[in-house]
Amino acid sequence: MYLGIDIGGTTTKMGLADSSGTFLSENSFSTSSYSNVNQFLSALEGEIIRMVSLVGNQLQGIGVGAPSANFHTGVIESAANLGWSGQLNIKGHLEEFMKCPVEVTNDANLPAIGEMIYGGAQVMRDFVTISLGTGLGSGIVSNGKLVGGHHGMAGELGHINVKPNGRKCGCGRRGCLETYVSATGLKRTLFKLLADYNGGHSELEEYAFEDVNAQKITEAALRGDKIAIKAFNYTGRILGNKLADLILVTDPEAIFLVGGMAKAGALLFNPTKESLVESMLNSYESTVEILPSKLPLEKVSLLGACGLIARSERQLKKSKHITLLERKSF
Amino acid sequence: MYLGIDIGGTTTKMGLADSSGTFLSENSFSTSSYSNVNQFLSALEGEIIRMVSLVGNQLQGIGVGAPSANFHTGVIESAANLGWSGQLNIKGHLEEFMKCPVEVTNDANLPAIGEMIYGGAQVMRDFVTISLGTGLGSGIVSNGKLVGGHHGMAGELGHINVKPNGRKCGCGRRGCLETYVSATGLKRTLFKLLADYNGGHSELEEYAFEDVNAQKITEAALRGDKIAIKAFNYTGRILGNKLADLILVTDPEAIFLVGGMAKAGALLFNPTKESLVESMLNSYESTVEILPSKLPLEKVSLLGACGLIARSERQLKKSKHITLLERKSF
Repeated sequence: MYLGIDIGGTTTKMGLADSSGTFLSENSFSTSSYSNVNQFLSALEGEIIRMVSLVGNQLQGIGVGAPSANFHTGVIESAANLGWSGQLNIKGHLEEFMKCPVEVTNDANLPAIGEMIYGGAQVMRDFVTISLGTGLGSGIVSNGKLVGGHHGMAGELGHINVKPNGRKCGCGRRGCLETYVSATGLKRTLFKLLADYNGGHSELEEYAFEDVNAQKITEAALRGDKIAIKAFNYTGRILGNKLADLILVTDPEAIFLVGGMAKAGALLFNPTKESLVESMLNSYESTVEILPSKLPLEKVSLLGACGLIARSERQLKKSKHITLLERKSF
Repeated sequence: MYLGIDIGGTTTKMGLADSSGTFLSENSFSTSSYSNVNQFLSALEGEIIRMVSLVGNQLQGIGVGAPSANFHTGVIESAANLGWSGQLNIKGHLEEFMKCPVEVTNDANLPAIGEMIYGGAQVMRDFVTISLGTGLGSGIVSNGKLVGGHHGMAGELGHINVKPNGRKCGCGRRGCLETYVSATGLKRTLFKLLADYNGGHSELEEYAFEDVNAQKITEAALRGDKIAIKAFNYTGRILGNKLADLILVTDPEAIFLVGGMAKAGALLFNPTKESLVESMLNSYESTVEILPSKLPLEKVSLLGACGLIARSERQLKKSKHITLLERKSF
């Protein structure tokens, strides 16, 4: 049994899964209602005790994903993203509290681990996941291992530059990829297009900025709304262009598009693939598949958190007999 | 004893090194004077026999780097880069001929392996090398292993896009990084600046396009030539900007700038570092060092070829006892 915890700015999700990735029990509570770290930790520990009591001593460990969490140290480096100040050594706290192994990673990497352990990447050694939600997160797996980086901060593809002096980003800079390619980016693009076309072209003209979201834009596009379709095309084209660069650097077997916005399916996948082929170096053409997740969209991150600890256990077993393949891939 | 072979379009370099990276014997011959693969292979095998006869049965293996060589298969995929047609299974040929282990990789990755085994990255697990020569090659090491990619083609940073509709590249596309950042890119920038400034500003105005190279531009810049200095600034600023993106994705401990153009030292390093800091996401600032190679510039690739086989041997020994650190880094 593995306990996965996905700490988000708004909600903390928890799930208790077996080795096949089937959840026996799930739970969630509000992160943002706790104004300081200690209150949050107490609430979290209470929930852990309650869930683990279902399985007694079968718990193998706990996997945790959180924004700006460092894979190497298990510390949430900048708890500001969660509305608190300072750092939080979540690994240290939970290991002491539960006396079991705890693994921690940046939440942007959770989908990569979910796909690797339970999803469509179980037989892949080199792949990428792009998570499209409020922002854009990425996870890169090379030689069968997550590219964590020296400081445990790899995978911040959402902040590579698309346009100098482009859209303002929450990071304080301008033109970051996630200001264009994310649920928020899609909405910004929609409003840019409404401005360009000056009315009479979209059912979405009746909504205020704060009332539009990716789901409304998707529904309008599926009904044939031309401006909504254009917004998806614009988004997918920028994504495909940047994926072409990422492929040159990491040469993956596949790229999985996951997260809420990936629900839009062909609306997003088609322009992304078209732009990718146009941007691609000839010798790489059609060597990379752009795939949807094989896991339920709502569960991929939580499965990733469970996978963190499941994987750690598998690695330990496997280390006893290294295969020739592994030696080869240095 | 390790035999390293670096097959380039013009010259094939060979070196016989001991485990400390000291060359006992070096040699080179013209690649381009052989119009077909079989003639080249015969010449190469003759040179191998001659060099190996010096050390008898102490040869542990042969490491080979070549353009578009696939790390997984040992095949030079597109021998067109070497003036021949078709593919060349260099690993298969040499293993059969010499009855010893042969490891092959894309030549862009050789400096990364050289730094990892013999140079400034011996204690690093996550770093990048950028080789600035006629083009721009890169090698990425993550979790202590080369990011080879699914098809063995990772590290083609030279072909990521800098400017849509930018300079024409040898790959058939436009605006690739290496059309700006490489010895050739520097020269193109110089001529762009000469055009912009319209005479009277540079000692380099006296040279024809075909007579200028990176060395002449470096020498002029060191003498205070303002246009030559501007050319370096322009080059370094583009490089720094793109390194900022690469750091977000791979989070390395250090980036090594190697290859002939890195000899320009501060002329190149200073604008690169300035631009990097300006382009960087705040939380990553000053976490990454931009370093020169610790190896002689002319030998870093050949040492990388020797390192290919030295590393393979070390991995085999080490696989008997996997450390906790390695298990941790998935």
